[in-house]
Amino acid sequence: MRTRPLKVALLGCGVVGSEVARIMTTHADDLAARIGAPVELAGVAVRRPDKVREGIDPALITTDATALVKRGDLDVVVEVIGGIEPARTLITTAFEHGASVVSANKALLAQDGAALHAAAEEHGKDLYYEAAVAGAIPLIRPLRESLAGDKVNRVLGIVNGTTNFILDKMDSTGAGYQEALDEATALGYAEADPTADVEGFDAAAKAAILAGIAFHTRVRLDDVHREGMTEVTAADFASAKEMGCTIKLLAICERAEDGASVTARVHPAMIPLSHPLASVRGAYNAVFVESDASGRLMFYGPGAGGSPTASAVLGDLVAVARNRINGTTGPGESAYAALPVSPMGEVVTRYHISLDVADKPGVLAQVATVFAEHGVSIDTVRQQGKDGEASLVVVTHRASDAALGGTVEALRKLDTVRGVASIMRVEGE
Amino acid sequence: MRTRPLKVALLGCGVVGSEVARIMTTHADDLAARIGAPVELAGVAVRRPDKVREGIDPALITTDATALVKRGDLDVVVEVIGGIEPARTLITTAFEHGASVVSANKALLAQDGAALHAAAEEHGKDLYYEAAVAGAIPLIRPLRESLAGDKVNRVLGIVNGTTNFILDKMDSTGAGYQEALDEATALGYAEADPTADVEGFDAAAKAAILAGIAFHTRVRLDDVHREGMTEVTAADFASAKEMGCTIKLLAICERAEDGASVTARVHPAMIPLSHPLASVRGAYNAVFVESDASGRLMFYGPGAGGSPTASAVLGDLVAVARNRINGTTGPGESAYAALPVSPMGEVVTRYHISLDVADKPGVLAQVATVFAEHGVSIDTVRQQGKDGEASLVVVTHRASDAALGGTVEALRKLDTVRGVASIMRVEGE
Repeated sequence: MRTRPLKVALLGCGVVGSEVARIMTTHADDLAARIGAPVELAGVAVRRPDKVREGIDPALITTDATALVKRGDLDVVVEVIGGIEPARTLITTAFEHGASVVSANKALLAQDGAALHAAAEEHGKDLYYEAAVAGAIPLIRPLRESLAGDKVNRVLGIVNGTTNFILDKMDSTGAGYQEALDEATALGYAEADPTADVEGFDAAAKAAILAGIAFHTRVRLDDVHREGMTEVTAADFASAKEMGCTIKLLAICERAEDGASVTARVHPAMIPLSHPLASVRGAYNAVFVESDASGRLMFYGPGAGGSPTASAVLGDLVAVARNRINGTTGPGESAYAALPVSPMGEVVTRYHISLDVADKPGVLAQVATVFAEHGVSIDTVRQQGKDGEASLVVVTHRASDAALGGTVEALRKLDTVRGVASIMRVEGE
Repeated sequence: MRTRPLKVALLGCGVVGSEVARIMTTHADDLAARIGAPVELAGVAVRRPDKVREGIDPALITTDATALVKRGDLDVVVEVIGGIEPARTLITTAFEHGASVVSANKALLAQDGAALHAAAEEHGKDLYYEAAVAGAIPLIRPLRESLAGDKVNRVLGIVNGTTNFILDKMDSTGAGYQEALDEATALGYAEADPTADVEGFDAAAKAAILAGIAFHTRVRLDDVHREGMTEVTAADFASAKEMGCTIKLLAICERAEDGASVTARVHPAMIPLSHPLASVRGAYNAVFVESDASGRLMFYGPGAGGSPTASAVLGDLVAVARNRINGTTGPGESAYAALPVSPMGEVVTRYHISLDVADKPGVLAQVATVFAEHGVSIDTVRQQGKDGEASLVVVTHRASDAALGGTVEALRKLDTVRGVASIMRVEGE
């Protein structure tokens, strides 16, 4: 074993960072044996230097992250600050000063992954970020390496634990969105400002990262169609149950059937109870990967939390450290396929539409005509009358999102349609 | 991109080998882009040279596998022959003549993994074998790399598709073992001689490989306690249902609670219906990995078949080829922990025991005394009378396998115990 230690700097020492530091200390012997050299915590950049940090030598603490990454003697910089700046500048500065980087920063990777990969390559350094998607669940490495000889056609997953907790609660208790959110907040599953989770920004960032790796194509956050789950109602869950389904916030990355383009999207969707993703409970995450040769694989586990995310960070740290000792780097960005990312209108799936209609003869015929005119084929219709009003629940066959949008617009113009109560996509069939 | 192609030889061209060759040909451009150099099929060793092999240049076919691996210009040898010899000699010969090796050979890896790893290291070559365990499911790489910074405590999985198909059939239809086996054979899920599957040899080999990697300790096939599933009856499934369980053939690798030793075993076991492994249907495989930091991860997918296994082989081929171009090798054997492998008697779990007893007062007291004398604590007892005979179903708390064995031996000696109808371990709680 090499005796000179590898020097590791930690940017950020919150829930994840403190756990990374703890494991680096308590499992130092194991890490050394697995890497082939000891690792040494060389510095920890924090915002609040006065906070007591158990197990971390106070002499290592600094508020000057920039000076830390410019030291020049670092082997690996672990970035667990999150957000765009100063994380982005610190990472590129780390590359410029000779360090490889392990990051858990999904927002930054989804927005600037290409530029960061280019910076890593320019300086001959590694950029690893397993922890950016689905916490401890190995996904980046399996997609990038295990499936490197296969052709991935679809990635379909629950990649946000907060929203899964809320939707699971709504499903199991009949609670409304606000009530379930309040419980998630009280239990610490949702942040005080839950926007990033419930509006799907977090999941969209992960979808961009997964789509990019799965399809060897650059996919940015802006390319991902995003709908949050704040408008999912108890009535939607009742409708889903009638269909033998539940509702999940899904990240879906797909190769078009002709193989010439890809799409990435995040939205709530109905999914059959028989689908393995339907039984993913609480704050757990799970991702399905469908490929030509391997068929359907599923990866399941805790999608967030200090310890699980630290496990992913440390797995990357070991890999990057081994590369460092071998004088090599791991696989960098693979974007050679450069497939176009199609807009949401080109996505083809099924739809569940609830309409409030007048309870009189001929309404169904009118509605059915509108679907037919827009080329959307109806699978089933269920009609329910109540005091002069009626509801019509239509489930379609596969159709493009654009065709469905045109259909709904035309339906709204019908005198007999009082309102479109809900539109939900049906996935996983 | 490097223009000189990497030369790949294929040993074996059956279900898996022909699929590897097909994908190498049809996806040549993708593989070249991902590796950074084209790959060329340089030779294919087969037993039956006259068989028509679509898409493979007949000039590449040879029956002389030894001469092929001795060519000296090969970059990677893909071994998909299976069995111990000639595979073992061919792999070591390949190392000696400058090639790295990708293998799908679980039996060989479980028996001689240490020697093969040593040979690879001696010659500075790679030995990869993702396809040896659970087909396309990424398991070796996640254990070896993603969890390299974590401490794995347990691996619990369904790693044999044939037996899972049979048990699933027995569970869902009430069929007996032979009937379910016959159906599996007719559908091609079981081989003409199903011994390796139904007696647990196949699963035991995978358990040895998984335990070795998970615990950084050499675990050989002989270290794995193995019980087949040929004696599982419809009555066992009925008992399991009463307990809210089903029966699966499980591979279980565990670190002892004191961390000082490990165990590895394969046997049928009851598992609660609420456990995710209980809903793994048909010939699918799934593996739970429990670690200190990452918590419970599950990996699920097709555990066998030409295409899925070929996907795993090609993922390894890409990794080994990249290493080759970078002039490096991936992580080799990691056996530094060198923990002792404890015998089955030291395994601690719960048990479900069905006894045929005389239907007279005092029997339960006698039986309960025997359990107490052997230090096995009873959780529940259910007594059922029928025409002067009675059955007693005992479910225990956690106890060592040795203590349970002593208990059963003593029970058999009781006059009032007519027979021990079944003993089954209860896992996954």
